[in-house]
Amino acid sequence: MDTKIRVAVDAMGGDNAPGEIVKGALQALESEKDLFLVLIGQEQPLKAELQKYPYDAGRVETVFASEVIEMAEPPVNAIRKKKDSSIVVGMNLVKRGDADAFISAGSTGAVLAGGQLLVGRLKGVERPPLAPLLPTAKGVSLLVDCGANVDARASHLVQFAKMGSIYMENVVGVRNPRVGIVNIGAEEEKGNALVKETMPLLKECKDINFIGSVEARDIPYGAADVIVCEAFVGNVILKLYEGTSSMLLREVKKTLMSSLRTKLGAVLIKPALKRTLKSFDASQHGGAPMLGLKGLVVKAHGSSNAQEVKNSVIQCVNFSKQDMKEKISRGLNV
Amino acid sequence: MDTKIRVAVDAMGGDNAPGEIVKGALQALESEKDLFLVLIGQEQPLKAELQKYPYDAGRVETVFASEVIEMAEPPVNAIRKKKDSSIVVGMNLVKRGDADAFISAGSTGAVLAGGQLLVGRLKGVERPPLAPLLPTAKGVSLLVDCGANVDARASHLVQFAKMGSIYMENVVGVRNPRVGIVNIGAEEEKGNALVKETMPLLKECKDINFIGSVEARDIPYGAADVIVCEAFVGNVILKLYEGTSSMLLREVKKTLMSSLRTKLGAVLIKPALKRTLKSFDASQHGGAPMLGLKGLVVKAHGSSNAQEVKNSVIQCVNFSKQDMKEKISRGLNV
Repeated sequence: MDTKIRVAVDAMGGDNAPGEIVKGALQALESEKDLFLVLIGQEQPLKAELQKYPYDAGRVETVFASEVIEMAEPPVNAIRKKKDSSIVVGMNLVKRGDADAFISAGSTGAVLAGGQLLVGRLKGVERPPLAPLLPTAKGVSLLVDCGANVDARASHLVQFAKMGSIYMENVVGVRNPRVGIVNIGAEEEKGNALVKETMPLLKECKDINFIGSVEARDIPYGAADVIVCEAFVGNVILKLYEGTSSMLLREVKKTLMSSLRTKLGAVLIKPALKRTLKSFDASQHGGAPMLGLKGLVVKAHGSSNAQEVKNSVIQCVNFSKQDMKEKISRGLNV
Repeated sequence: MDTKIRVAVDAMGGDNAPGEIVKGALQALESEKDLFLVLIGQEQPLKAELQKYPYDAGRVETVFASEVIEMAEPPVNAIRKKKDSSIVVGMNLVKRGDADAFISAGSTGAVLAGGQLLVGRLKGVERPPLAPLLPTAKGVSLLVDCGANVDARASHLVQFAKMGSIYMENVVGVRNPRVGIVNIGAEEEKGNALVKETMPLLKECKDINFIGSVEARDIPYGAADVIVCEAFVGNVILKLYEGTSSMLLREVKKTLMSSLRTKLGAVLIKPALKRTLKSFDASQHGGAPMLGLKGLVVKAHGSSNAQEVKNSVIQCVNFSKQDMKEKISRGLNV
C-alpha cells in the first residue's frame, strides 16, 4: 500500500525561486519519510537546480510547466489564461488527486483565485480563508482570515472560527484552542457592525472554546490560539506585525554596531539574542494554508528561503496525515 | 493683552492619576512660558498632589469636580449623568471658551463622546477623528482615525486626510506631508469596498499630497506622514504597534538578563540601546488630538506618566498657537 503523501511545490514562485524553493523542498525529504515531492517549473531552470543536490530520485517527480504567473498580473485573469503556469498545473494536480497538497510562494492573489476556482471549496464552506501562524510570546496563534475574503459576512467569520479551531487542535496540537475575535475594546458594546453581529453567533457555538474579544495589543502576547477577523483587518495585522518586528530589530542591530563599546557588548549577547529572535521568525512556521478547500493549498511567504519552504512541506504532510478535509466537513456539520 | 494659552487637564483620568498627571502638567509650566494650567479633579486628592511641588500659583487654577467617570462605564450615559465629573467639567470649560484645550487620560469612550456632544464639531466636519502620532524609523506619522468613528464612509476618510494633512503641516511642522490610505496591497484593484470608494476621491484632492496605498508592513518605516484609515483598522494598528513593540522589547530584555555573559554585554550596550528605544516610545509624542472640534480635546494614553502628560500639554499649546480651528475650517472649504 502506498502511504506516501504527495506534496506539489511551485518551483517558480517567490523572490528566491527556483534556488531556495528546490533546496528547501529537497531538505524536507530527509526529515519526512512519508513524503513524495512533485516539483513544478520551467524545464531548464528546474533541471539546473536539481543537479546541484544529491537526492533520492525515487521520491521526486518533476512536472514541467512553460509559463510563470508574475506578481503584478490580475489574479483571476492569470489563472484563466496561463493554463501551463506552475500555479495552474499544481492546482490541477491537487484537484485530480494526483497530489495531496500544493505549495506556492508566488502571487498571493493567483494562489487564492486558483484555490477557489480550480481546487474548489468543500461542500458547505462559504469562503475559504487564508490562515497563517503568528509567532507570539507563548508559541503560535492562527490568524484567520488574513487576506482571502475582504468585506466578509458574519456567517463567514463563524466558519473561520470553526475551521481555525480544528486546524489548531489537529495540525498544531493545541488542546481546546481559545478562539477570540479581534475587537477594539473588551467591553460588550464595543466593535463595528460586523463584530457586533458575529459576537452572539460565536457565543452560541458549542463546538469551539470562544473567549470573546481580543484587543490587537494582546495578540503578540498570545491572547488567543485562534484569532478571527475579516481579511482586511487580518492582512493589516499580519503585515504590521512583520513590519514592526523587522523595523525594531533593524534598529536594535544598528545600535549594536554603533560604537566599539556596543560592538563588544554585541559579541557577548549575540548567541542568546539569536535564539530569542529565532522564536519570533515567521519562516520557522511554514506557510499559510487555505482552509476549507477540497485539497490542501499553502501560500508561503514571497520572501521564503529554503528553511521556510522545508517547513511548509512538513506542514503539508502533517495536515494530510490528519485528514483535515474530513474533519473540517464534520466540524461545519455538512 | 492676555496671550496665555489655557490648558485644562483632567487630574483624575488614567492609570497613574492623580500623581503623574499633576506632576507632568506642572512640569510643562517650566518649558512653556505662555501656558496657564487649569487642573480639574476631586478636591482632596488634587490638593494633596499640588502640595508636593513648588509652582507658580499665578499660572495654575484648580477646578473641583466631585465625580469620576470610570473606564468601564458606557460612555454616552456617563457623559449625560455625571455632570460634575472631571471630563464633563473640562469639556464645558472648552465649550465656553474658558479653556483653549482639554486633556484627559481617562476613558477613551467618554472623551470621544464628550468631544462630540459637549464641545461639538466645527461646521462642515462630518466626524471628528482621533489622531495619535506613531513613532517610526523616520520620525512620526499621524494615524487618522484610530478609534472615534467605526463604520466610517468614504467622505469621512477624505476629511480625515485633509485634517490630518493640516495638522502635520502646522503642528508637527512637516512640509507637504505625504498622505497614504491603509490598504492590503499596492495594486490599483486591491482593497475592500470602502478603500476602493475612497481612493478616487483622495486622488481628486488638489490640496493634499496623496501618495496612494500604504501597506501596513511599511508603516513602521515611515511610509507616509498621514496614514488614513477607518477607526476599527486604525485602532488595530495603534494597539498592535504598541503590543508588538512592548512584547519584543520585553523578550530582548529577558534575553539580556538570562546569563552572566549576556548581563556583561547588556552593561556595554545599555546607554545606546536606551537612546534607540526612547525614539520609539509613544509617550514622547503626547496624546491623540480629536480633529475638527470647536475646541481642542486631547486623549492621552491611559498609562500616561508625567512625561507624556507634559508633552501632551506642550502639544496643546502648539496646536492653539497655530489656530488650528481656523485652518481646518478653511482646509475643508466651509
